[in-house]
Amino acid sequence: MINFELTREYIENLRELIEVNDETAIKLLLEELHPADIAEVYEELDLDEAKVLYFLLDDDTAADVLTELEEDDRRRFLTSLPSEVIAKRFIDRMDTDDAADILGELDVAKQQEVLSHLDDISNAGDIADLLSYDEDTAGGMMAKELIKVKENWSVPTCLRSMRKQAEEVDEVYYVYVVNADGVLVGTLSLKRMLLSPIDTQIKNILNDDIISVRVDAASEEVANIMDKYGLVALPVIDGVGRLVGRITIDDVVDVMREEAEKDYQMASGITEDVEISDTVWIHTRARIPWLLIGMLGGIIGSRLVGGFVGLLQQHPELAFFMPLIGAMGGNVGIQSSAIIVQSLASGSLGIDTNWTKLLKELTIALLNASVLSSIIFGYNYFIGAELALTGTVAAAMFSVVVFASLFGTFIPLFLSKIKIDPAVATGPFVTTLNDIIGMFIYLMFGTLFYNLFV
Amino acid sequence: MINFELTREYIENLRELIEVNDETAIKLLLEELHPADIAEVYEELDLDEAKVLYFLLDDDTAADVLTELEEDDRRRFLTSLPSEVIAKRFIDRMDTDDAADILGELDVAKQQEVLSHLDDISNAGDIADLLSYDEDTAGGMMAKELIKVKENWSVPTCLRSMRKQAEEVDEVYYVYVVNADGVLVGTLSLKRMLLSPIDTQIKNILNDDIISVRVDAASEEVANIMDKYGLVALPVIDGVGRLVGRITIDDVVDVMREEAEKDYQMASGITEDVEISDTVWIHTRARIPWLLIGMLGGIIGSRLVGGFVGLLQQHPELAFFMPLIGAMGGNVGIQSSAIIVQSLASGSLGIDTNWTKLLKELTIALLNASVLSSIIFGYNYFIGAELALTGTVAAAMFSVVVFASLFGTFIPLFLSKIKIDPAVATGPFVTTLNDIIGMFIYLMFGTLFYNLFV
Repeated sequence: MINFELTREYIENLRELIEVNDETAIKLLLEELHPADIAEVYEELDLDEAKVLYFLLDDDTAADVLTELEEDDRRRFLTSLPSEVIAKRFIDRMDTDDAADILGELDVAKQQEVLSHLDDISNAGDIADLLSYDEDTAGGMMAKELIKVKENWSVPTCLRSMRKQAEEVDEVYYVYVVNADGVLVGTLSLKRMLLSPIDTQIKNILNDDIISVRVDAASEEVANIMDKYGLVALPVIDGVGRLVGRITIDDVVDVMREEAEKDYQMASGITEDVEISDTVWIHTRARIPWLLIGMLGGIIGSRLVGGFVGLLQQHPELAFFMPLIGAMGGNVGIQSSAIIVQSLASGSLGIDTNWTKLLKELTIALLNASVLSSIIFGYNYFIGAELALTGTVAAAMFSVVVFASLFGTFIPLFLSKIKIDPAVATGPFVTTLNDIIGMFIYLMFGTLFYNLFV
Repeated sequence: MINFELTREYIENLRELIEVNDETAIKLLLEELHPADIAEVYEELDLDEAKVLYFLLDDDTAADVLTELEEDDRRRFLTSLPSEVIAKRFIDRMDTDDAADILGELDVAKQQEVLSHLDDISNAGDIADLLSYDEDTAGGMMAKELIKVKENWSVPTCLRSMRKQAEEVDEVYYVYVVNADGVLVGTLSLKRMLLSPIDTQIKNILNDDIISVRVDAASEEVANIMDKYGLVALPVIDGVGRLVGRITIDDVVDVMREEAEKDYQMASGITEDVEISDTVWIHTRARIPWLLIGMLGGIIGSRLVGGFVGLLQQHPELAFFMPLIGAMGGNVGIQSSAIIVQSLASGSLGIDTNWTKLLKELTIALLNASVLSSIIFGYNYFIGAELALTGTVAAAMFSVVVFASLFGTFIPLFLSKIKIDPAVATGPFVTTLNDIIGMFIYLMFGTLFYNLFV
């Protein structure tokens, strides 16, 4: 049984063996590992060390390891290899979907070169087909490998064909049934096959309650369908219903994880998909854009606050609560946006109209705003602050919470409508905007209350 | 083929049919739907309407729909039914893992009552077993349904046994091989079975490179293993290696989605797992705790800023940049935390020590801090601000960015070490703390620079 944990000792040991070129010991060290574990080991090595190791692996393992590598590492590795080696040692041994994903990371000229070196023309054709789809659609996620049988076949014909087809397919899951035109008409579960007498006709045991997606469906939709219906494999059809490929759950798990990570990173103000192991340069590049936007917002905010310089000079105590009002606007806005963004992502928005949603959010906001502004009013009253300050802070708190809630609900709904990823609404952009508007509301109330009461 | 989209018209139509009690029309309307779709329909109905519908479904569909419902809706529904109905109509028809999950939502007395009404004692025993595990462990996720064969069987014996066992198991995926003591020794893939001659011995075709988890492994670990190794089913073993259950990918997809959603909600300051369809009351309850913490932070901040009232009175222009400094501290801190939190969640932290990570973060922080403070210095210089103000803002910007980066990196690492979910570090708590400390740094620099230059 494999239960491998990567340690520094392991890597140091391996590096020493690579340096003295002890092939036998290296092979022994890697032998028991799963390709996903070997990929982890690779990511701790430099390119030359990695190459030494790579050519000690048997071909199938090498191809599996390549699939498991991080995109950046893989590209660097492949760029250093001739097209023929890529074709014969790697691409030829992969499932079509992995092959297309990996080729898609190379430039078009190199793609063509690699494809021209493949021995099996029909395999090359399948990969070229897959390369033509957008990677964020069902077409870009599917593999060509699947087992299909014709509806007018008998079980023995079927079994013979399946045995042959099964050699090309890693995990079977379902056997798809098509009609004479290649249109998907149903599935045959392996369990049903195990339980059926041998002389049954296919059309009598097929299950025609079949869920499929069109080749141009978005990858998020694919993930939502497979999650909702608990599917491990989903057939992909073209515009007229012909079966063109199959998406398996492992690819969808990746999409879901990436999707969730992307939303989370967006909410945290990170613009690229960074891993902790990426370089300092990549990290800086991923973080600075939002910081600059935040800074621009802060500068605009400083000019806005500057407009109230007279008020602040006379009543510097107004500055005491500026951080509180700014933070509250930001916090409330993010909460409201996050709920909408998540519902949009998981497709659980329900059938309420946008107006109903805003109305509900307004109720929640009024409730929260009442609680929060009462507390801050009580606090200022208790510590004996001036009435004008007490009133300003409480009134601003109430208005800012209500405004930020509605704004935080409206923005992602609006972005989604105009086909922009709504997750940006939970990022620093909306927070910054809420900050500025909150400051304006606060200082306007300040002007009003100090004129009224002082 | 089913491709159902829930519309308001559909629900209104259904409600009218329920009101006039037109059973035939209702059945017709629901007939084509997948249980997951029926569950969506249910969630738009009130309890009485839902009950009418429920008893029109055939028993297997009713059980499937129950599994698909949101936890709150399901509990409300089950609480209104007698234990015998729950046992015979629902629990008896479910897989053991779903049965245990659903029973686990009821109180212990009701659990016992329902179990006592089950006809199949061994099924009841399996469910009781599963109920004893923590729901966030492998034991709490696994099902008892699986296909296992003994290593000393021949293929024909195996096939006979498998046919019988397959009747109880929804998706087969793998056939597990155990020795005489019940210890897991390998798997038999269905594909391999399809391709092997009928007279093969099991021990000669089993695959002994098998990945398993112990029954007490955390659900996050289970998800990471299945994702990393691309598994659709994972066997669960007890302390001495005996096969006790099996976890399938669909359960793991739920865990992953929940985990990702939880981190995202935590980062957004939401304390409960809320759906957009939840009541106003639940939404308010989920949001207000963090807002109160933010408010407490803001109040502490107001006292801190209050300590500098003399400075602010003389130099109200210092207030102009308070929102900027506060926002930057918050933004930078969240970015740093998010990267650590995500690496911890996906198990991709690598083998660097915490010191190496902090050092790297320091480099990134110094880079970002230099860029940002140069820009704000340039801006203030360009608009002709006082030298003291220009210096204060630039120096504070630099310090706050560096401090918030290190703080944002350190806190989640520390929380993870003391076994607290590090995702809280990206929530309003750390943001608020960064805000206050940022304000303090800023006003201290203000005091220093105005004493130096004015």
